[in-house]
Amino acid sequence: MKIFDIPGFPNPLRVRIVLAEKSLADRVTFVKVDLPAAEHKQPAFLAINPTGTVPVLQLDDGTYISECTAITEYLDHLDGNPVLTGRTPREKGVIHMMQKRAESELIDAVGIYFHHATPGLGAALQPYKSPDWSGRVEWGNRQREKAEAGMRYFNAVLSEQAYVAGDAFSMADITVWAGLLFAGFAEIPVPAECGHLMAWRAKMDARPSVSHPA
Amino acid sequence: MKIFDIPGFPNPLRVRIVLAEKSLADRVTFVKVDLPAAEHKQPAFLAINPTGTVPVLQLDDGTYISECTAITEYLDHLDGNPVLTGRTPREKGVIHMMQKRAESELIDAVGIYFHHATPGLGAALQPYKSPDWSGRVEWGNRQREKAEAGMRYFNAVLSEQAYVAGDAFSMADITVWAGLLFAGFAEIPVPAECGHLMAWRAKMDARPSVSHPA
Repeated sequence: MKIFDIPGFPNPLRVRIVLAEKSLADRVTFVKVDLPAAEHKQPAFLAINPTGTVPVLQLDDGTYISECTAITEYLDHLDGNPVLTGRTPREKGVIHMMQKRAESELIDAVGIYFHHATPGLGAALQPYKSPDWSGRVEWGNRQREKAEAGMRYFNAVLSEQAYVAGDAFSMADITVWAGLLFAGFAEIPVPAECGHLMAWRAKMDARPSVSHPA
Repeated sequence: MKIFDIPGFPNPLRVRIVLAEKSLADRVTFVKVDLPAAEHKQPAFLAINPTGTVPVLQLDDGTYISECTAITEYLDHLDGNPVLTGRTPREKGVIHMMQKRAESELIDAVGIYFHHATPGLGAALQPYKSPDWSGRVEWGNRQREKAEAGMRYFNAVLSEQAYVAGDAFSMADITVWAGLLFAGFAEIPVPAECGHLMAWRAKMDARPSVSHPA
């Protein structure tokens, strides 16, 4: 398998942590995509992922799979033991619900703030991420507030349970962790009252797949 | 099981079609949520779904599951034959990728247009969906353009294969179908050149689960 991504970035890291969790790192070769140069917005890349995002997984049969949740579904089921996406109907439902919340209420909101209300990754990419329009900074700032509310929401969740989707680690934990990484990069601090979220984050930082992703 | 929703609306219909596909309609009772009155944005509803969206599934053990993809994952796995979400790792990956595209490139884009650039569902709900800010109409109109591009994308997909995620019907077809329903309600016509998309839509309209959802 091949993965088209860039090391150290939030969404690519989500899949690299999955690869480490599932002991699949040695089955993948990585192809670097130059995000600051907007390589993922050019025709050659759009031919493999029309949405223009990384990471993208290419299977050995040539099939391309984009979107972190979709890639995780594929990788997690290869060994028939889908611990990251859920083994029972109830686990699957709750994990996918929390995964969606981790995206819409945190990592995606941080991304919109970063690309609309700050210089983002620089001048080459910005026209693709946020063409000039009158409301772009206000829109970005509203999403920053959404991300901060998301941190308070996950803090409340983690005051009652050990992991984002319940008693066990799942892909939703990976997404919240990557959302906090992205928030730090975008200089959105975690609110001081979010002690449960920070304690959970320290536990994640110590997890081998997080400290040593693929 | 209980489902909190409102009949006839796009996202609730996604789950009602799943219920019909899986022959689960008689195991569910429906609780109506008054969307035009913004009932789903009030504390009583936010206690069961902090994101403030319908539909929400309540399991017999009391667990609440929101988000259409998560609810579909639950319902589709109850019989051990997940034909809507994928039976193999590859099917799961491709279906989840197309499901995400159907949301971000079509149904969610239509929803943002509808709630930001039109009166939406009226004065009671509008302050929750789109508080007054300078760029709201421009933002909505940009998402309308995204939805129109999404229609052209799915038209191209359906020029090469019978269903949105390949050779078989899946939850991604349901999402594109609901996206087109919502687009019609929001008065965004399907571009005239999208003949493959319209032919596929006629096939969907004739499917029993779509013509007679739960």
